[in-house]
Amino acid sequence: MSGPHLFDAGVALEPAGDVLRGRTRPEWKNFIGPFGGLIAAQAMNAVLLHRQRLGDPVSLTVNFAAAIEDGEFDAIATPARTNRSTQHWIVTLQQKGEVVATATALTAIRRDTWGAKEAPVPQVPRPSDVPLPEGPTRVEWVKRYELRFIEGGFPGAWDGGDTGASRTRLWVRDNPPRPLDWLSLTAMSDVFFPRIWLRRATFTPLGTITMTTHFHATQAQLAETGTGYLLGQTQGQGFGAGYFDHSAQLWNEAGTLLATTSQVYYFKE
Amino acid sequence: MSGPHLFDAGVALEPAGDVLRGRTRPEWKNFIGPFGGLIAAQAMNAVLLHRQRLGDPVSLTVNFAAAIEDGEFDAIATPARTNRSTQHWIVTLQQKGEVVATATALTAIRRDTWGAKEAPVPQVPRPSDVPLPEGPTRVEWVKRYELRFIEGGFPGAWDGGDTGASRTRLWVRDNPPRPLDWLSLTAMSDVFFPRIWLRRATFTPLGTITMTTHFHATQAQLAETGTGYLLGQTQGQGFGAGYFDHSAQLWNEAGTLLATTSQVYYFKE
Repeated sequence: MSGPHLFDAGVALEPAGDVLRGRTRPEWKNFIGPFGGLIAAQAMNAVLLHRQRLGDPVSLTVNFAAAIEDGEFDAIATPARTNRSTQHWIVTLQQKGEVVATATALTAIRRDTWGAKEAPVPQVPRPSDVPLPEGPTRVEWVKRYELRFIEGGFPGAWDGGDTGASRTRLWVRDNPPRPLDWLSLTAMSDVFFPRIWLRRATFTPLGTITMTTHFHATQAQLAETGTGYLLGQTQGQGFGAGYFDHSAQLWNEAGTLLATTSQVYYFKE
Repeated sequence: MSGPHLFDAGVALEPAGDVLRGRTRPEWKNFIGPFGGLIAAQAMNAVLLHRQRLGDPVSLTVNFAAAIEDGEFDAIATPARTNRSTQHWIVTLQQKGEVVATATALTAIRRDTWGAKEAPVPQVPRPSDVPLPEGPTRVEWVKRYELRFIEGGFPGAWDGGDTGASRTRLWVRDNPPRPLDWLSLTAMSDVFFPRIWLRRATFTPLGTITMTTHFHATQAQLAETGTGYLLGQTQGQGFGAGYFDHSAQLWNEAGTLLATTSQVYYFKE
């Protein structure tokens, strides 16, 4: 392999006049359009690359407003409010002058304070003891990750039986490994496959419409995580009237909570 | 009592040229500025009152960018993308030309589909068997709600002991009762007092900086809920480096999941 890591190529934005410009990549294709986690990372990158940016990410909400077509897009990040140690951002991604994604983000200069974790870290086998899935993947972006399912992997049969629960636990890291940063943590917030597929064992057409990630990690904790695996856990909370949600947590191998995240999907039937 | 319900007065917006204008109310004061749930409801109201609005709320993220001063503010809702059955909104609240809050929202025309709930409804006493708190409240907005704490009420003593967990369960409704609608459901997403106060039994200075609510309810479920109580449950997930989060669920008395929500607070020490 030569050249940049495929994640770096995927999230790259280049100045183009007053905006930043990115492009879709075949290596990151989902069923329709690009992997949503990559789009979220591109929105985050538009903030991180802004010359007025203050501090590190604390929260990001990305709304997937339309299917992104293959090709270029503009990423426009605007600091809506800058305070002494916090900054609020509005971001849009646009193609042909139309908004395809909206986002808000908060960045902040973090300080040492009291801290504690409360979301219990699941007791799970080590990554090396959890096999990689066998067989081909349906979509290209999945090849960009090592996804080691501890529980709640893809249904063995799409037989439409309601399993009553939709919890998944997995180990994940970039493939090939890449040191964790804000952008890859953002993208990894979206590696969980749709809960309704697991709950119903039915391959329902669907898509994420909004994802919110809260960043608990500090820059030092990202560095400590390095190229290690993240432990992800997710479960749905409610399904109905065309929409469902999940909430999720991401820890590093040392058990540090790096991010909590939630999203809403639409589904068709 | 005469005149409109104080919640209706609180969320009211009036056309003022090209924007909508609201004003803070003494009845909704928090320690500093207004109750955040009311601000969120005002942002939602700017969407709901927009003549181009399509469908009902599915998600809302509100970012509290600055303290809101007593007086008027402008609420500016822009439809960033309108699809066949979904619509994406960007909202700002402004005072004296400066952004004091940003928001994104998704509205959609919902359809009957398969549905299920997964977040388990806590087994709790009925509202009439849970007493109201005794003693005066510290802030005005709390008087606008009946808050019946089932577990995890305010610490009995602010003695700085780490309780190890921050779960609260409560029954809540407007005081006086008012039929539930999108705006009051939005506001009730923010009735949980800060988890760090419960976890540390320390009256830490703090504020919410971002709140995301996912609406599971349909209009019919709001109507079924009427003036009944909502059961709220919340717990923190991570605390550190000046910020902490919580996630929460809101059900009606019949056990229908109406909303899931999460937020991040900053704290000072």
